[in-house]
Amino acid sequence: MSSQQSKPHFGRIALIGIGLIGSSLARVVKRDGLADHIAVSARTQKSLDTAMSLGIADSVTLDPAEAAKDADLVVICAPISAYEGIGQAISGALKPGAILSDVGSVKEAVIRDLGPHVPEGAHLVPAHPVAGTEHSGPEAGFPELFDGRWCVITPPTGTNEDAIEKVADLWRATGSMIEIMEARHHDQVMAVTSHLPHLIAYTIVGTATDLEKSLRNEVIKFSASGFRDFTRIAASDPTMWRDVFLNNREAVLEILQRFNEDLTALQRAIRWGEGDKLFDLFSRTREIRRGVIDAKQA
Amino acid sequence: MSSQQSKPHFGRIALIGIGLIGSSLARVVKRDGLADHIAVSARTQKSLDTAMSLGIADSVTLDPAEAAKDADLVVICAPISAYEGIGQAISGALKPGAILSDVGSVKEAVIRDLGPHVPEGAHLVPAHPVAGTEHSGPEAGFPELFDGRWCVITPPTGTNEDAIEKVADLWRATGSMIEIMEARHHDQVMAVTSHLPHLIAYTIVGTATDLEKSLRNEVIKFSASGFRDFTRIAASDPTMWRDVFLNNREAVLEILQRFNEDLTALQRAIRWGEGDKLFDLFSRTREIRRGVIDAKQA
Repeated sequence: MSSQQSKPHFGRIALIGIGLIGSSLARVVKRDGLADHIAVSARTQKSLDTAMSLGIADSVTLDPAEAAKDADLVVICAPISAYEGIGQAISGALKPGAILSDVGSVKEAVIRDLGPHVPEGAHLVPAHPVAGTEHSGPEAGFPELFDGRWCVITPPTGTNEDAIEKVADLWRATGSMIEIMEARHHDQVMAVTSHLPHLIAYTIVGTATDLEKSLRNEVIKFSASGFRDFTRIAASDPTMWRDVFLNNREAVLEILQRFNEDLTALQRAIRWGEGDKLFDLFSRTREIRRGVIDAKQA
Repeated sequence: MSSQQSKPHFGRIALIGIGLIGSSLARVVKRDGLADHIAVSARTQKSLDTAMSLGIADSVTLDPAEAAKDADLVVICAPISAYEGIGQAISGALKPGAILSDVGSVKEAVIRDLGPHVPEGAHLVPAHPVAGTEHSGPEAGFPELFDGRWCVITPPTGTNEDAIEKVADLWRATGSMIEIMEARHHDQVMAVTSHLPHLIAYTIVGTATDLEKSLRNEVIKFSASGFRDFTRIAASDPTMWRDVFLNNREAVLEILQRFNEDLTALQRAIRWGEGDKLFDLFSRTREIRRGVIDAKQA
């Protein structure tokens, strides 16, 4: 309990990437005074200018190494495909005792890509705040984004406990609940709860996109009947999601295979008019909804 | 415009079935005094008792013919599989000029099942209020359910225009927007916007249900990352949805086939690491979201 109540404080925090997640985190750090200095690095000057004008950065630079220099905590908030290059770039700038963390939606690949670039004496503490909206970019952030949501931390075996606790404290300060998990297991759970749902949503909205134009307009018109929820999910950041699927390939393909088998069974039941099978499945799925409601995630 | 402003009035309305939709409609009729008498018929005495205690019925009966007798408007609010039996039962009770309508989510099958039982001088005006929640039963209803939503009316060719207009006026009074459509076309549009999304949601939640228990509990815990939205959709009434799929088989199987092809293509792109293909699809789907937002359906 004590760790939940004490407010963490960092000298210098470097955020590499300042999109929805990075800018939301920066807003919490600013709001609650969790750092003396926020250094922000991004790929474009436009993002840096926006971060400055939003008042969520104390210094900005296109060079990630410059931002990471002297930082007590570096948080990579960029697409997974950029991690290896960022790791290479900042490796020499990380001071002894520095913590390198991130916010990526897959975690085994993060350890694979960043691990080799963490110098002796620095600590790699990967994290995944399970939060987001369909909007992207620094303007889309808001400090309440993480409130009441989970943040999963996946430290490699043997990671310094103090470093883990500091990262946990930061995320507790955002209002998140903390879960420590093995990276591989995290990726399996997220393949089911997040990656497959997004893949399905992208597919179904894509299928609708290919309809002849008149039918497509009617699909939009009557989208409140179910389709709408999928369009929201399928409006998420394309770069982020491309990287998720490329970097959690095995777990996604495994759960997708199960999904395909189940869908084929349902398709067959519809074709052959097997009402009892349909009814049974449609009843069974209500239990999970009750679980979601009981877990206060509804 | 005049028809949108004049409040419709019926002598006797009979509601056959008093679940989420029927009870919501009854609440509007009561609230706005749109009928002198609401006669309710249901399959169980329990539903009838509930309707009485909720104050949304003036008379209740287990016999649909008794409710339909002398009614100016009969609205079937029951699962599609019950329509044929209800049609047979009430056929002899429908008075000359009576309007027979319904609220079913498929429309060709409704005309197929009810058409033969509509006596000379009565009018069949099928309707589909495109509204709902994941809750069912008479207690789940509320009068604002239809407000700002579409109601699609699918009259067979040659239907009496006055009868169509009366049904349209009733739904306008609930706050709905009216669309007149051919039944077959309605079923095709709904296969995409509503039936396929529900089928997919039922499948993915079913896939998760079959996971080993420990993983399933974690899926529930982290459901806010995408899965949650599917559990809500997959908690809808099993009987209603069984009947939808059995009665819109062709259109659902047709769009499901397209979906399957698209999903297979995505699966292949993931397996072979084709990031550009993934990025292109994930970008394309954002346009439909913008369409949904522009159509004020978001």
